[in-house]
Amino acid sequence: MKRYLASALAVTTMLTTPALADDAALREAAKEYFEAIPMNAPALPSGEAITREKVDLGAMLFFDPRMSKSGLFSCQSCHNVGLGGVDGLETSVGHGWQAGPRNAPTMLNAVFNIAQFWDGRAADLAEQAKGPVQAGVEMNNTPEQVVATLTSMPGYVDAFKASFPGEEDPVTFDNFAKAIEAFEATLITPNSKFDQFLMGQDGAMDEQEKRGLQAFIDTGCVSCHSGINFGGNGYYPFGLIEKPGADILPEGDRGRFAVTETADDEYVFRAAPLRNIAITAPYFHSGKVWDLKVAVDIMAESQLGEKLDEGTIDDITAFLGTLTGEQPQVVHPTFPVSTATTPKPAPM
Amino acid sequence: MKRYLASALAVTTMLTTPALADDAALREAAKEYFEAIPMNAPALPSGEAITREKVDLGAMLFFDPRMSKSGLFSCQSCHNVGLGGVDGLETSVGHGWQAGPRNAPTMLNAVFNIAQFWDGRAADLAEQAKGPVQAGVEMNNTPEQVVATLTSMPGYVDAFKASFPGEEDPVTFDNFAKAIEAFEATLITPNSKFDQFLMGQDGAMDEQEKRGLQAFIDTGCVSCHSGINFGGNGYYPFGLIEKPGADILPEGDRGRFAVTETADDEYVFRAAPLRNIAITAPYFHSGKVWDLKVAVDIMAESQLGEKLDEGTIDDITAFLGTLTGEQPQVVHPTFPVSTATTPKPAPM
Repeated sequence: MKRYLASALAVTTMLTTPALADDAALREAAKEYFEAIPMNAPALPSGEAITREKVDLGAMLFFDPRMSKSGLFSCQSCHNVGLGGVDGLETSVGHGWQAGPRNAPTMLNAVFNIAQFWDGRAADLAEQAKGPVQAGVEMNNTPEQVVATLTSMPGYVDAFKASFPGEEDPVTFDNFAKAIEAFEATLITPNSKFDQFLMGQDGAMDEQEKRGLQAFIDTGCVSCHSGINFGGNGYYPFGLIEKPGADILPEGDRGRFAVTETADDEYVFRAAPLRNIAITAPYFHSGKVWDLKVAVDIMAESQLGEKLDEGTIDDITAFLGTLTGEQPQVVHPTFPVSTATTPKPAPM
Repeated sequence: MKRYLASALAVTTMLTTPALADDAALREAAKEYFEAIPMNAPALPSGEAITREKVDLGAMLFFDPRMSKSGLFSCQSCHNVGLGGVDGLETSVGHGWQAGPRNAPTMLNAVFNIAQFWDGRAADLAEQAKGPVQAGVEMNNTPEQVVATLTSMPGYVDAFKASFPGEEDPVTFDNFAKAIEAFEATLITPNSKFDQFLMGQDGAMDEQEKRGLQAFIDTGCVSCHSGINFGGNGYYPFGLIEKPGADILPEGDRGRFAVTETADDEYVFRAAPLRNIAITAPYFHSGKVWDLKVAVDIMAESQLGEKLDEGTIDDITAFLGTLTGEQPQVVHPTFPVSTATTPKPAPM
């Protein structure tokens, strides 16, 4: 069994994990690597307060298609709260029906990731929120136009004032991003079967799921997929042991290399967070794999050099299903009304 | 003052409407033409029961982009519950970034219309719901593919069983449409300022709004825009007295003629319902007019042969603002999970 030990996260304890053990022992082993999703939004790394006003404003901005140049796309278009936070497409489709370069990652629990995007190029959710709104293949807007749109509507101006009290000119692109970050921090999925098991309920997972958890640890998946999000906390080469085919790992996408321009970062990606993975197909940054079992198989071979037998793949896949938490219940916002000075949507 | 008296709806009483009168008299005059939106969903014309199960299923179907061929568009894309039930575009953009032929009408209160679409070509909301999902420029799907998609997900199959109990094979395109109709019937906007006034609260409308209501009646707008929806209940030629320019009334779109193939129906459209009109720009089936005052001006000239003075246009526009009701609060549905047999989205 080969393992990639670049992560310093408690990897040494892997050597002492037990064979398929009783529930208490399995739970203790799991606690070495994983953490449950809390019931409430965590504090933001930036220290920005999460207030009700900011969350409500962020929800409006997240769902409002008028934040795009065309008037068609919102954050929700690719990060659908009803679809586990993704769009269910191989790669997203944006302005002018252009296909984006990578599969849309979920924003659910994304607040727990060390950085955002597949290559970690945004330090936090606020920085991330500024990306798609400007990307030509996504929402194709500009910060100036976003601010002009927001400023044109008294409903938005009031909401920014309430969200950023004391600021002289609160309607800014930075605050736009901060409000979205605050809303997204509330999009967490607690109380999954796995989390229930971790917190002491033996019956929350069935025998196959428990075997899968054990195999997930023993096989070495935990080397990269650990922490509260089962990933999202470190960078690793895709194809460490064996490169997947060009259909799954397109040669043109060299991952984190584009961020760091360091040769070591060629084909390096942030380990995908595995929370809610069973409901967020298709998989990988290329979105080329639709079957979670196939994804598990590919990962074991490419990252660990392990050819897993079918039973183990089934077990691990069953276990991954226990990472589906309670999905956020969001009341769809009623948006402020456009005015005569609101920039017109320009789809064509 | 010219009036088009095709509608039989209590038009005779127009002759006895008072000059700008006290509140009680204005209310009595208004009651001759209009009705308040009820607080709860009305019975469906078809007699189909509106059950909680059906409404919840309908909400899922309404918001689920997997009902489109591309996986990108849902009913909500063009009929946004946060935007007064429209998309805020001149004409909608659909599959392959094609522009649709007409401005998206709101589904809010649409249950009260005598028929659906600008030309009334669908008898009810269930029939309407079958249109866009199949239209090549909209969702570009087929009934077979919709049913295959739904059947592939146990979550949907169970929801159809619960919504249509006793049916042997409840997952049908007809029932898909019926569930959406049931959901849409709940999307009503009661308690507008006007409705409060109509129900007896003198202070719900200010003086300008009341002058506008009086002018709306006296000028003859009520000839077409009457009933619970201030329209949606009859068919009239656009440009009865004077044809608007080709930018606003495109010559290629001959309205209801396409439905009836009767010469009399050239450029005939269903009178636009005016509920929530202040929040659903742009206007007309071409979506070419963004300013409600301009729309009022054009309507008075083209339909009534009246050149209104600016003050009257302001008053009528202020009055139309009182037709904005309480917007529906909808919890965004969590969708059933796709399975291996779910047809893949095909945006390209």
